[in-house]
Amino acid sequence: MKWLDIDPSECPVRRTLDLVGEKWSLLILRDAVNGVRRFDDFRRHVGLSEAVLADRLRKLVAGGVLAARPYREPGARTRNEYRVTAKGWDLWPVLLALKQFGEKHRADPAGPMLDIRHDDCGAPVRVVVACSEGHSHLTHREVTVRPGPSARPLRTSPTC
Amino acid sequence: MKWLDIDPSECPVRRTLDLVGEKWSLLILRDAVNGVRRFDDFRRHVGLSEAVLADRLRKLVAGGVLAARPYREPGARTRNEYRVTAKGWDLWPVLLALKQFGEKHRADPAGPMLDIRHDDCGAPVRVVVACSEGHSHLTHREVTVRPGPSARPLRTSPTC
Repeated sequence: MKWLDIDPSECPVRRTLDLVGEKWSLLILRDAVNGVRRFDDFRRHVGLSEAVLADRLRKLVAGGVLAARPYREPGARTRNEYRVTAKGWDLWPVLLALKQFGEKHRADPAGPMLDIRHDDCGAPVRVVVACSEGHSHLTHREVTVRPGPSARPLRTSPTC
Repeated sequence: MKWLDIDPSECPVRRTLDLVGEKWSLLILRDAVNGVRRFDDFRRHVGLSEAVLADRLRKLVAGGVLAARPYREPGARTRNEYRVTAKGWDLWPVLLALKQFGEKHRADPAGPMLDIRHDDCGAPVRVVVACSEGHSHLTHREVTVRPGPSARPLRTSPTC
C-alpha cells in the first residue's frame, strides 16, 4: 500500500497534533519544560490572553501532559501550578527538533538563546535520527518507509 | 538569567512555529515527506477544505519548506506539484518526534502505521536526544540548560 492509499485518520502524528498541534500549546509546553509553572508567568512570558491560556492549560492537563497542583500564597486564594508530567517530557524531543530547525534556518548570528549540554561530558545536546543499531545522523535518503501492521486502506466513497 | 526573565519573542521554537505551528500545515508536510505532491491528493488524504489547503500550501511555499512546480496533464490546465525542499526535510525530525509520541501514548495495539528502517542494516529508525560526544538516549535530567549568547532580558513595562 502506498501512503496515499492508507487511512491516515488515526496516524500517530495526527494523534499527537490533536493534543498539542497548535502554536500556543507548544509555546506553553516550551515554557513549562523550562520551569515555568504559574498562570501569570505563562501569560506574561508566552504573551497570550488569559482566556486562550486557560483553555490550552485545561487541554494540556486533560491530555496528561501537564499536571495541576494547588498552592496558596498567604492571604491569597488557592491557585494552580502546572508541572510537566512524564508523558509531557516525552514531547521534549518535539521541542528540541523545533528549536534546531529555528536555529538552523532563522539563526541569530549571536548564537543560540538556550545552550543545552550533557551533564556528564559538557557536550552540546541535539535530537538526531538514528537506528537501533546505533547508526546516527541518518537522512531521509538512508531510510525506507513501508506500511506497518496497523496501516488500513483509505476507503474512498463514490461521492469523493 | 532564568528562562522566565529571557525575552522569548525571537526564540527558535517560536520562529519555527510561526512557519509550521498549526495542525494542517504539519499534516500536509507529513503527507509531502511521504510522497504526496498534488493538491487533490493532499485534500483527499489530509481531509481539509480546499480553501485551507490552498492557504497552507501558499504559506509553506513562501516559507521555503515546499517548492511548487507546474505540470500539465494532456487536455487539462496547468497545475502545481508541491515538493519538499532541503529546508523542508530539516523538519523531518519534528515529524518523527510527533510520530514517536503518538505511537507511545496512543498506540495501536496492532503496531505502527508506518515502519521506518535504515537501508544499510534494516534496523528501525527513531529520533533520539544525543550529545555531540555520541552519548545517546539522554533524558532531560541528564542535561543542563543555560542562557546562550542571544538571550536578552525580557523588558517589563510598569503597566504589565
